[in-house]
Amino acid sequence: PVAEESRAPMADAVRDLIAAGADVAALAPTGPALPLTDVDVLSPLAAPQKIICIGLNYADHIRETGLDTPERPLAFVKTAHTLAGPYQEVPVPAGATEQLDWEAELAVVIGAPARDVPVERALGHVFGYTAANDLSARDAQFADGQWFRGKNFDAFCPLGPWIVTPDEIGDPQALSVAARVNGRTVQDGSTKDMIFGVADVISYLSRYMTLCPGDVIATGTPHGVGMGRTPQLWLKDGDVVEVEIGAVGTLRNTVRFA
Amino acid sequence: PVAEESRAPMADAVRDLIAAGADVAALAPTGPALPLTDVDVLSPLAAPQKIICIGLNYADHIRETGLDTPERPLAFVKTAHTLAGPYQEVPVPAGATEQLDWEAELAVVIGAPARDVPVERALGHVFGYTAANDLSARDAQFADGQWFRGKNFDAFCPLGPWIVTPDEIGDPQALSVAARVNGRTVQDGSTKDMIFGVADVISYLSRYMTLCPGDVIATGTPHGVGMGRTPQLWLKDGDVVEVEIGAVGTLRNTVRFA
Repeated sequence: PVAEESRAPMADAVRDLIAAGADVAALAPTGPALPLTDVDVLSPLAAPQKIICIGLNYADHIRETGLDTPERPLAFVKTAHTLAGPYQEVPVPAGATEQLDWEAELAVVIGAPARDVPVERALGHVFGYTAANDLSARDAQFADGQWFRGKNFDAFCPLGPWIVTPDEIGDPQALSVAARVNGRTVQDGSTKDMIFGVADVISYLSRYMTLCPGDVIATGTPHGVGMGRTPQLWLKDGDVVEVEIGAVGTLRNTVRFA
Repeated sequence: PVAEESRAPMADAVRDLIAAGADVAALAPTGPALPLTDVDVLSPLAAPQKIICIGLNYADHIRETGLDTPERPLAFVKTAHTLAGPYQEVPVPAGATEQLDWEAELAVVIGAPARDVPVERALGHVFGYTAANDLSARDAQFADGQWFRGKNFDAFCPLGPWIVTPDEIGDPQALSVAARVNGRTVQDGSTKDMIFGVADVISYLSRYMTLCPGDVIATGTPHGVGMGRTPQLWLKDGDVVEVEIGAVGTLRNTVRFA
């Protein structure tokens, strides 16, 4: 229930399970099996310490933004107040943005703490993979220059629908990354086209900061966001945005303007 | 102990006390009284959901940076992995920065959740005030353009030495904000010179995102940072940086380069 969440905004059973180093393969279900259609599926994480996003990590996306190619992974961050479930509505405050955009991204969930980890061992710090929609208010993002506000409205990070462990993912650099708006495909890329791959990004970030169990790294988005289209396409009230990551699953969120 | 903290990086008794709406005036001490010199004083918060920093919020600081004056509060963020105690050493990884700088700031700790709060009621959402040193690796900050990495090395947010409740602070816009490096005063400002005051900042941010109990807002730094001096002054191994906020207290951190 919402009231309970707002009283304890930092509780996160999945994060704590990851931090405890639980052997997920050995976990047995403890509740009844329910059809997915009978439950509200929430974000698989409620309170990661940080959701680090990598900007400009696909060459074809960089071209559509008109921005420069970074010489190193370009990191910015969302915090846990932005999390939304995989099928949750995204409420947008009245007058807060006229340029709401989507970004389909493969998201990595950190397992064991990572500090100064070499590239060769970086994937050993991955607990699993999930899908993220890095929703962005482009007007706020570029008016500020710093991307924090434009990327951090409440519910601007739909995540899920679940976390898939690495054994079921295979090569994280061979996954499809797609987005649809009202059923029409707008992004159709592959993680093989990342400039900095998952292992590179983990190793690089860990030189400067400790990556903690349950931390999320959203690895950037391919070509096809609304700001890069001609004419530009902004999300409006009632639009349904889907993000589909191969071997993971699909987010489906409806945007609601107040 | 460090080992215990790394197993449970999200535990935060003070944040949970704030979230529970505890009447701090009615709290009685439950442990023995110990001299401050006999204890390690940790950061007063261990795991706030977000530490929002306001950039370029004092006119004389904006002049020294050569950057433009923002038309609205310019927000960026640190996450909880950056927290350090008020007297803790700040370890800097080898080769990670050659331009380490300080920023003395009044920090606000949020009490009751704030969402779309008018300016007139904003201070009612303040649990208390503390001091922050918004340590900044200027080379990383400006190489990226986005300020996340350069502001988010481990231990780049010394906080404390304690949280002072509003009744003991008086007017938050009449507090001294000072920094010293090895005993020499380098910043000597006042919160009266903020462009956007505490109430304005809380109200503004709450239009876009929910401010949660225990969230920290570092309200910007006055004139006198290392990058603005002639010649520029960067922190080096063994330097002692003090941040003193009137009616709050003093942080004293030694920098250690690996």
